[in-house]
Amino acid sequence: MTERQDLAALQQRLVDFAAARRWQPFHTPKNLAAALSVEASELLEIFQWLTPEQSAAVMDEADSAHRVRDEVADVLAYLLQFCDTLGIDVLDALAAKIDRNELRFPRPDSSAG
Amino acid sequence: MTERQDLAALQQRLVDFAAARRWQPFHTPKNLAAALSVEASELLEIFQWLTPEQSAAVMDEADSAHRVRDEVADVLAYLLQFCDTLGIDVLDALAAKIDRNELRFPRPDSSAG
Amino acid sequence: MTERQDLAALQQRLVDFAAARRWQPFHTPKNLAAALSVEASELLEIFQWLTPEQSAAVMDEADSAHRVRDEVADVLAYLLQFCDTLGIDVLDALAAKIDRNELRFPRPDSSAG
Amino acid sequence: MTERQDLAALQQRLVDFAAARRWQPFHTPKNLAAALSVEASELLEIFQWLTPEQSAAVMDEADSAHRVRDEVADVLAYLLQFCDTLGIDVLDALAAKIDRNELRFPRPDSSAG
Repeated sequence: MTERQDLAALQQRLVDFAAARRWQPFHTPKNLAAALSVEASELLEIFQWLTPEQSAAVMDEADSAHRVRDEVADVLAYLLQFCDTLGIDVLDALAAKIDRNELRFPRPDSSAG
Repeated sequence: MTERQDLAALQQRLVDFAAARRWQPFHTPKNLAAALSVEASELLEIFQWLTPEQSAAVMDEADSAHRVRDEVADVLAYLLQFCDTLGIDVLDALAAKIDRNELRFPRPDSSAG
Repeated sequence: MTERQDLAALQQRLVDFAAARRWQPFHTPKNLAAALSVEASELLEIFQWLTPEQSAAVMDEADSAHRVRDEVADVLAYLLQFCDTLGIDVLDALAAKIDRNELRFPRPDSSAG
Repeated sequence: MTERQDLAALQQRLVDFAAARRWQPFHTPKNLAAALSVEASELLEIFQWLTPEQSAAVMDEADSAHRVRDEVADVLAYLLQFCDTLGIDVLDALAAKIDRNELRFPRPDSSAG
């Protein structure tokens, strides 16, 4: 049983894991960006022939639910390792992006009408 | 200035943001998986013609550093929205995957020799 | 006006084009595979928020039709340059794959019933 | 033994193959664009951890050579099926793109110096 771990703790586990296996020479930012995009495509592959309705039911079946969770984990794992390599704080990057998007796509006036 | 926010808070901001703009009909799991994969490719695009050495220096220049942070944020944004739609806890999924990988790729014996 | 050109002639034009601009050092198989995958994602981006019905009508509007044709051309361009670099005959590769698929997915018996 | 076949003949074989198996309902432009991008990522996966030098030697080993040819065939197969669905002539699209690129990136003056 794994205790509940936050993002920073999981990122550290990933970095230690790769270091213990001497994988750092392979973990250039370019290679990690390629691996991230490959994993994102493996997630998409699960959905490629599904209708929108079928895609919404993908967690109902144990096998496909496991596959989806597995690919989601791979995407996040490579994203965190990529960010570690370049010294990017992924939560700060996302907060800054949401701030920018709130200016770019103003909230519609909910009192309209 | 944005206060430091954790992953769950950012995920909630993304979900509220999309709901306020009535984007949920577009946010099927299939469409979000496609968007995630498109954003991961936009990150890769920055690196596609770079040597390994150039790829390690990508944060040295303000413009490319901004672009990298922006794409990293987009990848995480779509990953969190995808997980919200399907009720997946992304941190649990990653912790479980690291657990499995520790069994699959045993730590080399560091006392060897 | 360009005369009708076959695949081999277009592949040669692409190779000559890159050579004249001294782009070969960038055109490693790895970089070309990355570029191919980036272009395929740019094609997917056009469709990411569309319903299946909207996606079937994408050529009805001049701007999106142009964008689709442009991305299709980019995908084929990088595929042909990739194959040139590695000495792969892409038509032979496809013919061999269709042969294998005909064994793997036998034609349903159309006289059934 | 398959006779040498041109692009149009292979495209027709692919269309007939899918029709005989009643796969057309799955072959919306959106789904085929997703499948194309997934196959391009499978090609990239072969190269993701390789150095530029290793990537140039990928055809030297029979297994990886077969895998590369197989993925190249899949990319072209989905590209041709995508183009068939939308009535796009892929060779015309590429010829037009090369024409545009010749204007956009003028040939360096080879008589310079």
